Amino acid sequence: MKTIGVGLIGTGYMGKCHALAWNGVKAVFGDTPRPRLVHLADVPGERAARQAAAFGFEKATEDWRALVADPDVDVVSITTPNALHAEMAIAALDAGKHVWCEKPMATTLADAARMQEAAARAGTVAALGYNYIQNPMIRHVEALLARGAIGRVNHVRFEMDEDFMADPDGAFFWKNEASSGYGALDDFAVHPLSLIHTLFGPLAKVFCHMDRPYEDRPVPGGGRRAVETFDIASVLFTLACGASGTLCVNRAAWGRKGRIAMQIFGTRGSILFDQERMNELQLFTTDGRADEQGYRTILAAPEHAPYGNFLPAPGHGLGFNDLKTIECRELLNAIEGRPARIVDFARGLEIERAVHAMARAHETGGWVEL
Amino acid sequence: MKTIGVGLIGTGYMGKCHALAWNGVKAVFGDTPRPRLVHLADVPGERAARQAAAFGFEKATEDWRALVADPDVDVVSITTPNALHAEMAIAALDAGKHVWCEKPMATTLADAARMQEAAARAGTVAALGYNYIQNPMIRHVEALLARGAIGRVNHVRFEMDEDFMADPDGAFFWKNEASSGYGALDDFAVHPLSLIHTLFGPLAKVFCHMDRPYEDRPVPGGGRRAVETFDIASVLFTLACGASGTLCVNRAAWGRKGRIAMQIFGTRGSILFDQERMNELQLFTTDGRADEQGYRTILAAPEHAPYGNFLPAPGHGLGFNDLKTIECRELLNAIEGRPARIVDFARGLEIERAVHAMARAHETGGWVEL
Amino acid sequence: MKTIGVGLIGTGYMGKCHALAWNGVKAVFGDTPRPRLVHLADVPGERAARQAAAFGFEKATEDWRALVADPDVDVVSITTPNALHAEMAIAALDAGKHVWCEKPMATTLADAARMQEAAARAGTVAALGYNYIQNPMIRHVEALLARGAIGRVNHVRFEMDEDFMADPDGAFFWKNEASSGYGALDDFAVHPLSLIHTLFGPLAKVFCHMDRPYEDRPVPGGGRRAVETFDIASVLFTLACGASGTLCVNRAAWGRKGRIAMQIFGTRGSILFDQERMNELQLFTTDGRADEQGYRTILAAPEHAPYGNFLPAPGHGLGFNDLKTIECRELLNAIEGRPARIVDFARGLEIERAVHAMARAHETGGWVEL
Amino acid sequence: MKTIGVGLIGTGYMGKCHALAWNGVKAVFGDTPRPRLVHLADVPGERAARQAAAFGFEKATEDWRALVADPDVDVVSITTPNALHAEMAIAALDAGKHVWCEKPMATTLADAARMQEAAARAGTVAALGYNYIQNPMIRHVEALLARGAIGRVNHVRFEMDEDFMADPDGAFFWKNEASSGYGALDDFAVHPLSLIHTLFGPLAKVFCHMDRPYEDRPVPGGGRRAVETFDIASVLFTLACGASGTLCVNRAAWGRKGRIAMQIFGTRGSILFDQERMNELQLFTTDGRADEQGYRTILAAPEHAPYGNFLPAPGHGLGFNDLKTIECRELLNAIEGRPARIVDFARGLEIERAVHAMARAHETGGWVEL
Repeated sequence: MKTIGVGLIGTGYMGKCHALAWNGVKAVFGDTPRPRLVHLADVPGERAARQAAAFGFEKATEDWRALVADPDVDVVSITTPNALHAEMAIAALDAGKHVWCEKPMATTLADAARMQEAAARAGTVAALGYNYIQNPMIRHVEALLARGAIGRVNHVRFEMDEDFMADPDGAFFWKNEASSGYGALDDFAVHPLSLIHTLFGPLAKVFCHMDRPYEDRPVPGGGRRAVETFDIASVLFTLACGASGTLCVNRAAWGRKGRIAMQIFGTRGSILFDQERMNELQLFTTDGRADEQGYRTILAAPEHAPYGNFLPAPGHGLGFNDLKTIECRELLNAIEGRPARIVDFARGLEIERAVHAMARAHETGGWVEL
Repeated sequence: MKTIGVGLIGTGYMGKCHALAWNGVKAVFGDTPRPRLVHLADVPGERAARQAAAFGFEKATEDWRALVADPDVDVVSITTPNALHAEMAIAALDAGKHVWCEKPMATTLADAARMQEAAARAGTVAALGYNYIQNPMIRHVEALLARGAIGRVNHVRFEMDEDFMADPDGAFFWKNEASSGYGALDDFAVHPLSLIHTLFGPLAKVFCHMDRPYEDRPVPGGGRRAVETFDIASVLFTLACGASGTLCVNRAAWGRKGRIAMQIFGTRGSILFDQERMNELQLFTTDGRADEQGYRTILAAPEHAPYGNFLPAPGHGLGFNDLKTIECRELLNAIEGRPARIVDFARGLEIERAVHAMARAHETGGWVEL
Repeated sequence: MKTIGVGLIGTGYMGKCHALAWNGVKAVFGDTPRPRLVHLADVPGERAARQAAAFGFEKATEDWRALVADPDVDVVSITTPNALHAEMAIAALDAGKHVWCEKPMATTLADAARMQEAAARAGTVAALGYNYIQNPMIRHVEALLARGAIGRVNHVRFEMDEDFMADPDGAFFWKNEASSGYGALDDFAVHPLSLIHTLFGPLAKVFCHMDRPYEDRPVPGGGRRAVETFDIASVLFTLACGASGTLCVNRAAWGRKGRIAMQIFGTRGSILFDQERMNELQLFTTDGRADEQGYRTILAAPEHAPYGNFLPAPGHGLGFNDLKTIECRELLNAIEGRPARIVDFARGLEIERAVHAMARAHETGGWVEL
Repeated sequence: MKTIGVGLIGTGYMGKCHALAWNGVKAVFGDTPRPRLVHLADVPGERAARQAAAFGFEKATEDWRALVADPDVDVVSITTPNALHAEMAIAALDAGKHVWCEKPMATTLADAARMQEAAARAGTVAALGYNYIQNPMIRHVEALLARGAIGRVNHVRFEMDEDFMADPDGAFFWKNEASSGYGALDDFAVHPLSLIHTLFGPLAKVFCHMDRPYEDRPVPGGGRRAVETFDIASVLFTLACGASGTLCVNRAAWGRKGRIAMQIFGTRGSILFDQERMNELQLFTTDGRADEQGYRTILAAPEHAPYGNFLPAPGHGLGFNDLKTIECRELLNAIEGRPARIVDFARGLEIERAVHAMARAHETGGWVEL
């Protein structure tokens, strides 16, 4: 059986998520090469060894460059802090590896551009971890739009909110530092942007306002430090396709845990979705009798590929980690030269450009064209 | 028993709504003067006579000035098309009557200002029909904010959407003409603005983008005519109290029927509400154990005044028309010199100013201060 | 204009509800006779006088027999405690009046039968206050069933739950006494039974289990007294039409405030409804593509008569009291000899018989035929 | 590292589910032995070979007895049709293996009893695949009950509904044959029973009514055949703990896809859950101010173990297959001699006895004691 050698750098939240995907993808889909879990890198080395054992990798190292140099490794999962993505991804691409890098691409636009250049140079597959687009319900949205179920789209609204930074007494940490980026804009907005790009194509122009719910935060040891990033961002935009829309993100939104809400309005209907209920989709169309119209709640089912690869029964539900398994399969499709649904570095760069345009709009107080 | 003489001008949607309020307010609240339904005006006179009979008014006329001059009339309900509000309200105020005028105040800012001047001059009560603020659940939001249930508010999001203009094949009509105003901004946005003003106070600055889902519409008899108003408006704003927010309105939003959704985020919790489920409120607080936190759905109940005046049992539900009955009682409170919860002409003028500032922001592509 | 003289006995929860209906019905529907609010009875006389003033009745009395004898009274609203219904209704019917009596009919089956005999004898209209069947959404369920939207019904589930008797520390009161009836069975079950009868016709056989969540309750002044009624009842049944079903009621169900939930399963779809969201209906049908099927939430709208008599805009919502206004209009329709949707005393007696059959099933531990 | 040898019999719906669990359990939990996927059995042998390759098993066979005899196999997953469970489980137990058998235990009570005897004889771990009890939200229900969050439970309602047998035109198949069991009772009711047993302990007595929505079904090739099983069952019961309840199951319920709904009423609150939204729980308590009470929707989070083993972020959601991974870990805990949350064969037999008692109640029309 055909196999593919896997290297994994980083074993935190997303590292484990990648590991689960690599462990499960073959059993779920059947038609992929068999992943051979070759090499795992993390620091310190003792952690690498422990995680390699748990995740089923053959070798462990604290030197990620050794992993990149390993001839048995065909594809490298990069799940380290954002500031490290560029160096690692470029090294892996230059070594002729395929790369599967978590979002966002990098902490500067220049780095993201260099990553895209390396990918173009390497000619291997370079994919980003925008897994929300892999949800069968999101694919179904795409199918509905393609078949004109709600007509031509004229307006959309996107929101992404969580509350892990909502506590005013939470200590100052790296996400409050300007070096980590703008804040909610690059931390959150890139996710809805991956959905917007996938469903509607590129943005045309943006306006943006960012806000800080808390001016400063306590520093461990005493005193307070001024917060440098913006936990809230609100964006108005128009799309190249002609529709207009809004994008609101807030990582200090008490009560929201994993909300990514979308409202899509068309000439013949509308679609609603919220990631907190990721196995549901709401569809309104003008078909049929007026007295029977209403939003219908469609539950995820085998009719919505690739749900059926996980479960033959409808309404039983996929989980967040399953999205990463689907993404892993799409990556393998791309590597195999089959049609694949991924956000590659080229599209990823467009998303980064949009984020930076939004930040510029905030600063200038006017529209910024893309 | 103390009575108050009522005149009603206009008998359409809102005219009937006022009539129902005048018929029911005494039975619901008990402590008000008894409304004496004196005079009703509409055109043609035959319609006025028919509606007077149905609504229980003593006299009918097609001359609204006769109604305004009627010495038995103490308070005048004005429910005619927006363009007529100013003339009628000013005449009634100048005649020493109390005035209860439907929103929006007028079709121009100048007219609204003249109305406010007439009210100041008259010294009688001049109230606007912003009935959504009368919902017991909205009052409860106000109480929650006042008692600090969610801490200091730092961000809010408001939406108002319906679909009565969503059909691209709908014929061109007066709401598509520039003479009717900007479109969704004055037609819809004033409602959430009444809530924002009531709950959080005045706006500080606004940015706005308006959009047309349909460039033109069929004209009865053939041909098409360019649409002059904007059915969609999206607004970013900051409040004088320091919080930021968004306001999105769309009267071409398929599937939405009476949605007025709000999300209020504070330092210790958040509140959600949607007028389509007007008897429910969702509250999240950081009180208690982390593993038991979640949005709680509070059903309208006698604890939420003045629900108990309508029903002694919780969860049984008020309707849209009941809000107007509450508003009518508040108007009577004001007339009686008691504390009252109304949007008077002074506050109404502030709302109008905000709408015009938004339109200017749309035109200039920059922030507009208020 | 044609008028009809109204007498009202009782001014509590339902008395006020009737008063509001009599005050509003003409303004809402236009096509009814004008109610003339003639006579109101309550004890003591001072309360009667105060309520007559508030509700707009001409005369007040503490002697309900005087009201029944009043020649200006054409129809008598009876909203007194259940034990008084029989005597008052029979007296009014014997005096040639129309009667509008709150549910349940009486506290004994014999009394209910006597009431029905009096109604048959009088030939006037005798209607019961089962207002939930008047909800436009329930009418729409009926229309959906009639047009075969979900095929032939084979199974139904009904629940009615509130929590006003859920507190174990609540003092013993009259609803805990056997003289008040069985408990949840006659207090609550009659409401879903009115819906079952209206939508599906009569029951064929029943099985029942009743339960007491609390064996005794504190008595004001000290000590505890054994609870004699059952706050919980669970019923299995079959219908004459062939379908089977369940009926569960609980007036000690913490968190439930006005829940009347129904699930209707047919050969081609299903329908869900919950009175706590009385302006919504959920419909699932097998029409259309499998990947687009789902429960659709239909919001109350002018398409669902007689919603449009209250509001021209969809999704704005009726309230509980509006159902009584609709019921009042149906009563007037019946009096006018027009087709009417009411639960008359004959059908009411069937509902009472079903309740007593359930109690017998509980006692015998076996099925009871109807 | 410690390993455990795994054999898997059957590779359909549940077979794949077990395979995914065995592939992922170590990476998710870290603290388990490493599963070594030794042997897979299915028929025909070619399918076994293909699935072994996909699922990552070393050996494939079409002779399940060879798998049972394999000394490298320590634990046997049995996911074959129900009628085969007894023979395979007993053989595996007699060979000294641990057994993980899908529900229900067997198609006859005698077989289930023999399985339990074999397990007692073997002294190895014998667990059943009742994975719904593994949901972190269900565990949280258990924790809430244990800490008295809703007081003493006095009434419960359970429902389980799907629609895969709702189509009246669906062809007659093995689930319509009496040899497959009673129908919805053993197919569905065992799942809620596993929850009831876990949360509240054993039943005391039951009453039951079963129903057929469709009397006959088309036979491939022409003609129709009488349906022998019951797709609907409705049960009243009392629990040994003193509470009463209802259990309703329907596998012909159009629109329901994976509904397992529970309502738990206690002296101080209530809890709601529906498997179709398996990452949510609703809790109502009487704590706090009356005007702020309401059902709160608790989203699955790391606070609800073992959610955190899958995801560090709250509200991101587990899927159905993750429940099987949790069950797998509990099985390994039991094998390791650690505390474990499983339905073993002894408890499984109690569940089977309850089902058969329900069927007897249906036949006799009276209560049956357990």
